[in-house]
Amino acid sequence: MLPIMEISGSLNMVGYGLATIGPGIGVAMVFAAVINGTARQPEARGALLSTAWIGFAVVEALAIIGIALAFAIQ
Amino acid sequence: MLPIMEISGSLNMVGYGLATIGPGIGVAMVFAAVINGTARQPEARGALLSTAWIGFAVVEALAIIGIALAFAIQ
Amino acid sequence: MLPIMEISGSLNMVGYGLATIGPGIGVAMVFAAVINGTARQPEARGALLSTAWIGFAVVEALAIIGIALAFAIQ
Repeated sequence: MLPIMEISGSLNMVGYGLATIGPGIGVAMVFAAVINGTARQPEARGALLSTAWIGFAVVEALAIIGIALAFAIQ
Repeated sequence: MLPIMEISGSLNMVGYGLATIGPGIGVAMVFAAVINGTARQPEARGALLSTAWIGFAVVEALAIIGIALAFAIQ
Repeated sequence: MLPIMEISGSLNMVGYGLATIGPGIGVAMVFAAVINGTARQPEARGALLSTAWIGFAVVEALAIIGIALAFAIQ
């Protein structure tokens, strides 16, 4: 009797899922820091947001690269 | 006697499950920061929420992209 | 004598289980923030709860979508 395994899908999708854990939490930490800073000094919101965009870009890039790699790696 | 394995399902669903861990915790961190900030300065709730929507969008996008990729990647 | 392995089930169930980790922790963080804020400023409970329902909806949605995808993805 042979084993019956009807598994479909791609390990690349598992890799993308793992690649979003860090950026998902990380980008949220950046914006949560902006929100906490704005609650403490409302007039500093512009300066905080301009820094947050830098952090957002470099952290979110890791997940976006994961999308590209999920299609590129075979 | 050979091993009997009747495993079905798709690895893409495992990938989607992993893709929700980061955004699930992350979006909650953003809104928890808004709630904490509102408790400290109730009049700043509007400014905090406007920042929170930005953070919510970029973090939740990682999970929404995971839904699309679960169907796209074969 | 070879080892006998009788493993059954679906990977989609594993995916749903993973999809509840983030929202499970996240929704708890949102309501924990409401509880902490209410303990600090009891009169702000209404404003905090109205923000919490938004956060609850967008975070819990990730797990509910996982239920649908577990049936949709083959």
